[in-house]
Amino acid sequence: MRVSVVGASGYVGGELLRLLLNHPGCEIASVTSKRYAGELIYRVHPNLRGSTALKFEEMSPEKMNDSEIVFSALPHSQSSEVVCGLIAQGRKVIDLSADFRLKDAAAYEQYYGYKHLHPDALEESVYGLPEIHREEIKKAVLVAVPGCMATAAILGIAPVISQQLIDPAKLVVDAKIGSSGAGVSPTLASHHSERSGGVRPYKTTHHRHIAEMEQELSAVTKQEVRVSFTPHAVNMVRGVLATVHAFGKGPVETKDVWKAYRSMYEKEPFIRMVSDNRGLYGLPNPKTTTGTNYCDIGFEVDPHNNRLVIFAALDNLTKGAAGQAVQCFNIMSGIDERAGLNTVGLHP
Amino acid sequence: MRVSVVGASGYVGGELLRLLLNHPGCEIASVTSKRYAGELIYRVHPNLRGSTALKFEEMSPEKMNDSEIVFSALPHSQSSEVVCGLIAQGRKVIDLSADFRLKDAAAYEQYYGYKHLHPDALEESVYGLPEIHREEIKKAVLVAVPGCMATAAILGIAPVISQQLIDPAKLVVDAKIGSSGAGVSPTLASHHSERSGGVRPYKTTHHRHIAEMEQELSAVTKQEVRVSFTPHAVNMVRGVLATVHAFGKGPVETKDVWKAYRSMYEKEPFIRMVSDNRGLYGLPNPKTTTGTNYCDIGFEVDPHNNRLVIFAALDNLTKGAAGQAVQCFNIMSGIDERAGLNTVGLHP
Amino acid sequence: MRVSVVGASGYVGGELLRLLLNHPGCEIASVTSKRYAGELIYRVHPNLRGSTALKFEEMSPEKMNDSEIVFSALPHSQSSEVVCGLIAQGRKVIDLSADFRLKDAAAYEQYYGYKHLHPDALEESVYGLPEIHREEIKKAVLVAVPGCMATAAILGIAPVISQQLIDPAKLVVDAKIGSSGAGVSPTLASHHSERSGGVRPYKTTHHRHIAEMEQELSAVTKQEVRVSFTPHAVNMVRGVLATVHAFGKGPVETKDVWKAYRSMYEKEPFIRMVSDNRGLYGLPNPKTTTGTNYCDIGFEVDPHNNRLVIFAALDNLTKGAAGQAVQCFNIMSGIDERAGLNTVGLHP
Amino acid sequence: MRVSVVGASGYVGGELLRLLLNHPGCEIASVTSKRYAGELIYRVHPNLRGSTALKFEEMSPEKMNDSEIVFSALPHSQSSEVVCGLIAQGRKVIDLSADFRLKDAAAYEQYYGYKHLHPDALEESVYGLPEIHREEIKKAVLVAVPGCMATAAILGIAPVISQQLIDPAKLVVDAKIGSSGAGVSPTLASHHSERSGGVRPYKTTHHRHIAEMEQELSAVTKQEVRVSFTPHAVNMVRGVLATVHAFGKGPVETKDVWKAYRSMYEKEPFIRMVSDNRGLYGLPNPKTTTGTNYCDIGFEVDPHNNRLVIFAALDNLTKGAAGQAVQCFNIMSGIDERAGLNTVGLHP
Repeated sequence: MRVSVVGASGYVGGELLRLLLNHPGCEIASVTSKRYAGELIYRVHPNLRGSTALKFEEMSPEKMNDSEIVFSALPHSQSSEVVCGLIAQGRKVIDLSADFRLKDAAAYEQYYGYKHLHPDALEESVYGLPEIHREEIKKAVLVAVPGCMATAAILGIAPVISQQLIDPAKLVVDAKIGSSGAGVSPTLASHHSERSGGVRPYKTTHHRHIAEMEQELSAVTKQEVRVSFTPHAVNMVRGVLATVHAFGKGPVETKDVWKAYRSMYEKEPFIRMVSDNRGLYGLPNPKTTTGTNYCDIGFEVDPHNNRLVIFAALDNLTKGAAGQAVQCFNIMSGIDERAGLNTVGLHP
Repeated sequence: MRVSVVGASGYVGGELLRLLLNHPGCEIASVTSKRYAGELIYRVHPNLRGSTALKFEEMSPEKMNDSEIVFSALPHSQSSEVVCGLIAQGRKVIDLSADFRLKDAAAYEQYYGYKHLHPDALEESVYGLPEIHREEIKKAVLVAVPGCMATAAILGIAPVISQQLIDPAKLVVDAKIGSSGAGVSPTLASHHSERSGGVRPYKTTHHRHIAEMEQELSAVTKQEVRVSFTPHAVNMVRGVLATVHAFGKGPVETKDVWKAYRSMYEKEPFIRMVSDNRGLYGLPNPKTTTGTNYCDIGFEVDPHNNRLVIFAALDNLTKGAAGQAVQCFNIMSGIDERAGLNTVGLHP
Repeated sequence: MRVSVVGASGYVGGELLRLLLNHPGCEIASVTSKRYAGELIYRVHPNLRGSTALKFEEMSPEKMNDSEIVFSALPHSQSSEVVCGLIAQGRKVIDLSADFRLKDAAAYEQYYGYKHLHPDALEESVYGLPEIHREEIKKAVLVAVPGCMATAAILGIAPVISQQLIDPAKLVVDAKIGSSGAGVSPTLASHHSERSGGVRPYKTTHHRHIAEMEQELSAVTKQEVRVSFTPHAVNMVRGVLATVHAFGKGPVETKDVWKAYRSMYEKEPFIRMVSDNRGLYGLPNPKTTTGTNYCDIGFEVDPHNNRLVIFAALDNLTKGAAGQAVQCFNIMSGIDERAGLNTVGLHP
Repeated sequence: MRVSVVGASGYVGGELLRLLLNHPGCEIASVTSKRYAGELIYRVHPNLRGSTALKFEEMSPEKMNDSEIVFSALPHSQSSEVVCGLIAQGRKVIDLSADFRLKDAAAYEQYYGYKHLHPDALEESVYGLPEIHREEIKKAVLVAVPGCMATAAILGIAPVISQQLIDPAKLVVDAKIGSSGAGVSPTLASHHSERSGGVRPYKTTHHRHIAEMEQELSAVTKQEVRVSFTPHAVNMVRGVLATVHAFGKGPVETKDVWKAYRSMYEKEPFIRMVSDNRGLYGLPNPKTTTGTNYCDIGFEVDPHNNRLVIFAALDNLTKGAAGQAVQCFNIMSGIDERAGLNTVGLHP
């Protein structure tokens, strides 16, 4: 199947190319970047040296015509225009920006600070989290790939909240994220000298991923869910760890929690339950997911306060972005959901 | 004033020596280490090369006789015997282990797994947090220096909980700590290859510092406080960030929170309010406290969920251990509380 | 083809399992570890969770009987006994220790401090560097996989020294290596607190890899080569960068250097010339080789001093150990040399 | 004594403020920054929160009138104009840029790519390396503070080259440097995601510091010295390690090397010989110098190749820039050379 990647010079675009170049079921038709048009891809994504001689091109609608599915890795607010054009042209699109994640157009003004130009498309788009929306993804024309921290939080919480095990009003998500989550553009916040050796809380009460988390968790549990979310920038390149502190509605029992996870995830190819709490790796740690499409989930029941602590770890560029996009692609294409996603992580 | 340091070969002992060697009001009589007796101190603490020609000695009670105050940096459960001996000998002791922090002897069995051999001394000992116990420290014979994460959490929470601004039953403390907190003995958990590039939750529901936090916060607020505490090992050497997620009893107002902090900390020499949320350093980040005795505190009110997020950052070896010990020493000695603690942090 | 791995609990053993589990042409018969016998492999190598349900076993000669080739990842000086036994039993062995790398038994006393117990086997063994010994590897019964820093240095130097472009008497190799090179056993040198934030020279004049470098480079150039080698432990987990400072015999010309590399490496599947010096990744950086079997090589001519600076970067666990072992395995087995070695690196 | 700092918003400027605020012999009159004029200094240099309430001002010549000595931390090529103006005004200046380090105006075109506008001032300026130019610094009107890697290399080499122990034509300096050396302006090269986890050679044959090294070493040894210099960007924030690979003129004897160092550095307050090669810290490691004004020097003789390996470690912002500037200030002012430079390093 022929695919194209629009806006591929960033970290998410590069990760997508890494996965697609190794994917048995697709052929890359065109890779675009305004900034790097004409440049060899491996000069921007040096890991691909030896794997491809492709060059970045300027985006043009015609070039997309023979691609069955187009991936867009354009920035938030710049993606919607291009994506809607591609759909009008008859393409299916997997969009990695936030532009089609939220169902409520008004939320874009509240969380993203811009007025959405294509609110109609929001209805049509499918939130690309296979563990929850697999059936809709199969038929989707437009898939909006979730945010990385939203993916971790939702996957960690959904099973237990849908079983009504926890209080939806006192849900704390404390996230730790690596620097690649901030993208390829140099800023002081991601300057090596500033980032190394510290832990920096940011957007402590109003991060954009809250909107996704609440939308999806409210849908799953059919009541309003409020997430208290605070992310922290840590000295790590790839990886998200979402630590969820939840409180039981009634007394939380370990066996009920296991049952909730098992019933929802037993057959999921990319969820690993890491919850034996034995040894150094008995609970999720994003280090173990680097480069893979896994979301590792573990938990502990804290009888002291009737608390349930949940840990969800993933690679923000893979299961948190490009890998999830490829997983959606596989579902849309009716092929093995694991195709092209067989990277085994590294240790150490 | 002559002082001695017992068990000085670990990271806390080394930090203590760094501070005491530069302290205008004290002279080091004896530095002991069973393992390194006879060795030059700077071979174990290489930062002290050029600052001292002292050697480690074997501990013996007689050597302590001309020290007015003895610092003990012996490990938990090994310290109490030595400390009680020194007190019987007439010494004042500042103990950096956990052996005298808890008032309830039974808590040692629950949290530390050993039966306390000198429960009587627990009454006499003073919890060495100057911001709360300054007056008792002045007269103390035995000071128990608090744990590093306990210090951060208690200092962050005490003002607002004592003003009854937050619910004492739903108090989440999510901590991030550097590797020096695990001490100088090599283990797989602190092996560079394992620690780098990840975030590892550990002792997720039953960490020992919970006992200190609840003891001190319950005393401050005169009701039972329950802390939901989960620490995370991050890729950083020095530093603790405690992120406190609290929920308002009534609606939380920023001005009330400020008032609570100001009234308690206005004159504190080692509390910096870092809460303007401007720029990269508008909230606490342990990076900025490295090597200093500061505890930086900031907060945000989250009206979405009536949440109060509090951040408290410090250097686990300084304000979280040796610096706090020196601060207590200064108070006990009646000298300027800042003596010997004037290290300015580094940037970057 | 059935293979076994002896002594597989360390980092090199784990990397080998990662590669073999994904290898299209082999089936793992037995994986041994004295320490972890009976334990699930993924508890020790957490990246393999989800990829295998195998357990470690005790080593016993019988278990090896149906393996055509056995990989030994036992420590130096412990491997030779086991390996010679396996060969006597009729197995082919790929040994990842240093026990069969050197041709001169006396060198083991000089460099490794032990008397070699099976000097006869040294003649028979083949130094497993395919770029130099491919033909011998094809027929080998015993392959000794080279050291990681030796691999980088030899691959960087061999083409230009064999073309007589550089002075074999003034050859400086300054290496930078990640912590995984020191293995899985915790030591103070690899303690996170000590390793982070510094650069530590070690074994500055007498590192064991000198013996391999001189043996191989002398053979290639048919004259005595003396290597001045100094490694440095840096704050990185995987990776070696060997910086070679060489001086021209006559004036060094860029085109001659290119010619030397091209003629030797043009068809090599795992050598990438990274020597355009454009952008951030125009010269080798071990970051770009992580998890891959590539050795990236680049150079600059310094007319100021008639110096040739060569950079060779690789992943010490892959091309520097387990990947090279699999490459040798492929050659011995007569299958595609790239089989099982198709990991594409990550960026960032 | 009143001093001012011009261009103080970068890392070197911040380090200078850290040292001057703690300096017993000086009072800060004015601190300028075009970009941050009007802003509190501690918002840019967060370590100074609690230590100063000063603000950045716009630079104006009048403000400098009551400063006896002005420090300039303006960028290369922008500093000379301002500095010459200040000198014309009657100020003494300590310049931290490269604009007055080289005696040969033509070298600025060769190494820095700009034509020097004030070549006359080059004669007058003194190269601010106290260990070599202390007497001239005492009387200087204009001091040019050396580059960080030049400082390490020159201090490591000068004693042995001036004693004619090593060949001045085959002198390799292989440097490893932390990210703060690249300054505060975000670039892709210092982007956390790119810098972490790698070692990147840069300016491999033509780095600007070569000009300083050759100028100073040639002067010391009274013959032409050629330095083969290659720096590497490593995953560290502060610190330089210069590894010097030198070859003996005659056979190199350890005792002669010691004698050379002792005779030159015995009374130097900021040179520590770290050359016992015992334990983890028996040779220089920049980690141990962080925040201090020390240059640690150690060496090994390699009889194998008659090589002398020298290691010189320092903090690029302190002894490599601002600390050295303060040391020069103390010398110019006739006060204790150690004033304001008593920071003890941290461990770990």
